[in-house]
Amino acid sequence: MSNSSKRGLSRNVSRIAEVGDGGEAGFDMENGFETAWHGRSVIIEREKRSIDVVHKVGIPESKGLVHQFNSQVKETLFPDDPFREFKGKPFGRKLWLGFRYFFPILEWAPNYSLNLFKSDVISGITIASLAIPQGISYARLANLPPIHGLYCSFVPPLIYSVLGSSRDLAVGPVSIASLLLAVMLREEVSPIDAPVLYLQLALTATFFAGVFQASLGILRLGFIIDFLSRATLVGFMAGAAIIVSLQQFKGFLGIQHFTPNMDVVSVLHSVLERRDEWTWQSTLMGVFFLSFLLIARYYSQKKPKLFWISAAAPLASVILATTFIFFTRSENHSISTIGHLQKGLNPPSISMLCFHGPYLSLALKTGLVTGLIALTEGIAVGRTFASIKGYQVDGNKEMMAIGFMNLAGSSTSCYVTTGSFSRSAVNYNAGCKSAVSNIVMAVTVMVTLLFLTPLFYYTPVVVLSSIIVAAVLGLIDVPAAYFIWKVDKVDFFACMGAFVGVIFISVQIGLLIAVGISVFKILLDVTRPQTLLLGNIPGTALYRNVEQYKEASRVPGFLILGIASPIYFANSTYLRERILRWVQDEEDRIENEKANTLQYVILDITAVTTIDTTGINSLLELKKTLTKQGLQVALVNPGAAVMEKLERAKVIESFGGDCLFMSVGEAIYSFSSMFKTEAV
Amino acid sequence: MSNSSKRGLSRNVSRIAEVGDGGEAGFDMENGFETAWHGRSVIIEREKRSIDVVHKVGIPESKGLVHQFNSQVKETLFPDDPFREFKGKPFGRKLWLGFRYFFPILEWAPNYSLNLFKSDVISGITIASLAIPQGISYARLANLPPIHGLYCSFVPPLIYSVLGSSRDLAVGPVSIASLLLAVMLREEVSPIDAPVLYLQLALTATFFAGVFQASLGILRLGFIIDFLSRATLVGFMAGAAIIVSLQQFKGFLGIQHFTPNMDVVSVLHSVLERRDEWTWQSTLMGVFFLSFLLIARYYSQKKPKLFWISAAAPLASVILATTFIFFTRSENHSISTIGHLQKGLNPPSISMLCFHGPYLSLALKTGLVTGLIALTEGIAVGRTFASIKGYQVDGNKEMMAIGFMNLAGSSTSCYVTTGSFSRSAVNYNAGCKSAVSNIVMAVTVMVTLLFLTPLFYYTPVVVLSSIIVAAVLGLIDVPAAYFIWKVDKVDFFACMGAFVGVIFISVQIGLLIAVGISVFKILLDVTRPQTLLLGNIPGTALYRNVEQYKEASRVPGFLILGIASPIYFANSTYLRERILRWVQDEEDRIENEKANTLQYVILDITAVTTIDTTGINSLLELKKTLTKQGLQVALVNPGAAVMEKLERAKVIESFGGDCLFMSVGEAIYSFSSMFKTEAV
Repeated sequence: MSNSSKRGLSRNVSRIAEVGDGGEAGFDMENGFETAWHGRSVIIEREKRSIDVVHKVGIPESKGLVHQFNSQVKETLFPDDPFREFKGKPFGRKLWLGFRYFFPILEWAPNYSLNLFKSDVISGITIASLAIPQGISYARLANLPPIHGLYCSFVPPLIYSVLGSSRDLAVGPVSIASLLLAVMLREEVSPIDAPVLYLQLALTATFFAGVFQASLGILRLGFIIDFLSRATLVGFMAGAAIIVSLQQFKGFLGIQHFTPNMDVVSVLHSVLERRDEWTWQSTLMGVFFLSFLLIARYYSQKKPKLFWISAAAPLASVILATTFIFFTRSENHSISTIGHLQKGLNPPSISMLCFHGPYLSLALKTGLVTGLIALTEGIAVGRTFASIKGYQVDGNKEMMAIGFMNLAGSSTSCYVTTGSFSRSAVNYNAGCKSAVSNIVMAVTVMVTLLFLTPLFYYTPVVVLSSIIVAAVLGLIDVPAAYFIWKVDKVDFFACMGAFVGVIFISVQIGLLIAVGISVFKILLDVTRPQTLLLGNIPGTALYRNVEQYKEASRVPGFLILGIASPIYFANSTYLRERILRWVQDEEDRIENEKANTLQYVILDITAVTTIDTTGINSLLELKKTLTKQGLQVALVNPGAAVMEKLERAKVIESFGGDCLFMSVGEAIYSFSSMFKTEAV
Repeated sequence: MSNSSKRGLSRNVSRIAEVGDGGEAGFDMENGFETAWHGRSVIIEREKRSIDVVHKVGIPESKGLVHQFNSQVKETLFPDDPFREFKGKPFGRKLWLGFRYFFPILEWAPNYSLNLFKSDVISGITIASLAIPQGISYARLANLPPIHGLYCSFVPPLIYSVLGSSRDLAVGPVSIASLLLAVMLREEVSPIDAPVLYLQLALTATFFAGVFQASLGILRLGFIIDFLSRATLVGFMAGAAIIVSLQQFKGFLGIQHFTPNMDVVSVLHSVLERRDEWTWQSTLMGVFFLSFLLIARYYSQKKPKLFWISAAAPLASVILATTFIFFTRSENHSISTIGHLQKGLNPPSISMLCFHGPYLSLALKTGLVTGLIALTEGIAVGRTFASIKGYQVDGNKEMMAIGFMNLAGSSTSCYVTTGSFSRSAVNYNAGCKSAVSNIVMAVTVMVTLLFLTPLFYYTPVVVLSSIIVAAVLGLIDVPAAYFIWKVDKVDFFACMGAFVGVIFISVQIGLLIAVGISVFKILLDVTRPQTLLLGNIPGTALYRNVEQYKEASRVPGFLILGIASPIYFANSTYLRERILRWVQDEEDRIENEKANTLQYVILDITAVTTIDTTGINSLLELKKTLTKQGLQVALVNPGAAVMEKLERAKVIESFGGDCLFMSVGEAIYSFSSMFKTEAV
């Protein structure tokens, strides 16, 4: 046994003598110590064998304020280093690269081939057949004249094909954005009493959405959409899908006087109250087509090769239903139809944007919220398919593309558009190769606008309701919710918060609740960081959480704690109290088990990636308190950022220079050898 | 050279041959490889020597939902484990301990001695001599009749001495809370036009402040005040001090028509505009007493033993100035005086609390903000002196004490009170031993209220202004601001945000800005976490940041990255992109230096303390992308929480079971040996 352990041992023995617990028990205990101290010396011996030299903790050179600021800005705004390709290139080349950056079409167009075009034509026509009925339906969802849904599938896809970097995204109107637009605008303006003002506001909101989206991309603030977590979106989408579906009761039952509210309670109440307005003809037709669409989707999902069944089903439904009404003339038998659709391409609508008046803030607010949600959906969809095919989608570029698409849209009678999940999936399955499929779709829609709109005169409204319900039911992702529940309960809580908020309160409140819970979760994690008790993994120089590794053994006389979070103002008080409680617990344990006295507290701050001034003060106070209790404190493995701050705050000096170590092993080794020299 | 390195070498040579860069250059490069691969085999050899067995990463046993929830709640709300002492005690003892928990006076009263009492009497009288003039001054600052300042130093100290756990805190009215109360109430109610309503609202706000403070303590939500960082408070206090000082121009210059606004611009404009109202008598007297007070403080700060000079100066000033006015009768010569003060103890004021009417929300808002700031100040002051004397102050208990003190205060004509920094410092310096000094102060104030109030009839207002300015100038802590600037620029930014916001916009906005910046800083840190390139420290099994440790050397063929943050929805996209950029950078470097191909990416996730479902998906996608690039990925040292989630999400299976390691060394060792068997 080494000197050091002997000394520790005798100290403990005398302690027991004081407690008055000598005799046989004392003897046994002494044996216990012997074993414990033997374990300690084994660890120390191994550390000695492997440690040639105790390393100094590195202090990175201070890089000056400007450099620091620059690198911070770079990491925050340009994490993807978009200028990488520009470095060291001649001016002309830089200009070309710049053009290519803003117009991704220049990247792929030069290598575009006839073979690729063939695939794109097929997929383009397929998504057009889906976009036309969905467009008309979603426009109705947004309380706008149906023709605007078709306008939305003409101009925006053309813009996106030039600016967008996704090869699979099919752009156009989507259900969630349409719903949000309707919900928010209808709070102040009735689409029935003031249809022109409502349209003006919808277009103005689209303009603001575009400005907001493009600005996020240009200012490289794309991380803002990251604050909508996956869990949040799963809950939000499911809630919105239910809200949208419930709204379709109006079409399904043919109710004329329907509540303007969106929440479950009002809608169900309204449905039951208006039983006298129910018309069985509508219901029958609606249920028939909904079943048809759902069965078609079911088969397509089972066999991805049959994707075209579900892709063609909506258009087939529309054609079938329209033909049926045309021949039976049952539009007079209480089945309402779309009626007259204006012929011709998108009329310009710059004059309809209004930037003054009492509703400006409404349009602005609606634009921001709708734009944010549309952006999130578009980028998530783009990334999903990019990841399947193994290419990268640049988030900031996509934001600019979607933003400019909406800006252009707002002046050509389109409301908010983005990448649609259902149509993109069909696009992908139909074998699209590039954004050309969007161009093909736009051309098909153009032909429809120019020549085919009269055909929709007899299309029954209820078939549009069926299309909407079938589409949004696909947004309810039960397996994802189950996965979230299984893996992370707090995430599930955020998910359910969004869901319940949307269906019982309102769409915006649901969204707010979900973002609130998500951010609160981060702050709570930061406020209550983990502290872990570390022990030595036998036979190695590794120190790991004793709860996680059962074989990890404590080093007698040492309390080794891992701090698992940056030390901030928000958690420094907690951490100080928690560490003092660890020390207290350890001393209680020592007293109960009559084990060796605690001499050293080693704080492994590997995971403390940063520290602020409040945290530094707290660390100093902790050190003071522990020193008063006769304990020696060491900090292990501070990172570069922390080291720099400790250095600048002159903490290292007041901590005593010999309290910083590069590894737990070296700290134990150093303390033990200091101890020895003291003892000798 | 080992088989493995030979294979890597030949691969690289053939790569160069493709690039068409053979001949002599190729030869040199081959030498370069030789050295690099030699370095690699040295590291691998050492790992082999020290590694007996590759450890499995521990998976903690799943503990069930209820247990998890309980331990989470315990860590969040009871980090200090207040029930520790109660464990295993008989019921009677538990009851007593419970009483003692809520009434800390029971802890120290039984051991209280005459000697302690002597010290407390001295310090109690000293702080009373400070509390009386400050109380009158601060009540004026709050736009309340001066007598309420004295009431505040009678009832609340008595309550605190029973409930409070600090031995040094001197409670009573404070400048910042008085200012905030005035600013917020005056926005809607004029103290001059509607003095009764104003007083009612002040008392009601005090009631709400008390409820809020006590609830925070009872619900153990004390961490909410941690969101006011030290940096924020330094800026906020300094700004408030300047605002308060500027307000005193009214008294100093004897201006009658003063602006009701608080910001610098309005006040200076008002001062200059009303030059005709300036009275030199007031100014002369004000400047004289201010100089006196500042000089007294200066000497006290230089020699802490002379603390009584600065402690006695305000009362001395009041006595001097009052005597002077009394004999010169210059109250007629445009020096305004306090006038009549009501005699008698605090009148009950329950009937003045109003919980309905149009101003309820104003009172509520004012109560919350004032209560929060008062609480923060009180607890910070209590902790400061506890830390000097080496005892612990229980934050939650203090909140209850301060809360109940304000509740009692609101029904006895007191407005918001808390622990005052200046008086607590005097209390400490005068040698107080327990909360009895607060009782002595209260008794002294009681005597004043009963018998001495007529003496203040001739006290000039300007001397109160001097007392306020002298007190608040002490709140401007330039060295602290300099320390913050030196150590942490973002903290300094928050500090300046609070400062500028307070002096140029408003007190509340300044506070909001500061909290906003602080929270934004946390979120930004979470959104943009660091990723570090790790290298081997020669002669050890340690892998550290190559920027921090110049001696750390990269392991050829391996890219070792440390991820320094939890992986959340808010940063998972960034992290994926950033890691892919690291890989790209490494491959560029390899191409430039014609070094060895990259084969393995090792992610050290020691500092990833938690992961959510979005993060898990992101990790899976990263793995997929890297695998497509022909790279093998390993995760090193996942913590217990992360491991549990990876297990539940079945990531371990899809990652391949052999991708998880306990240390970087073991990962390198395992990959190298796998590599060898492959090669053989």
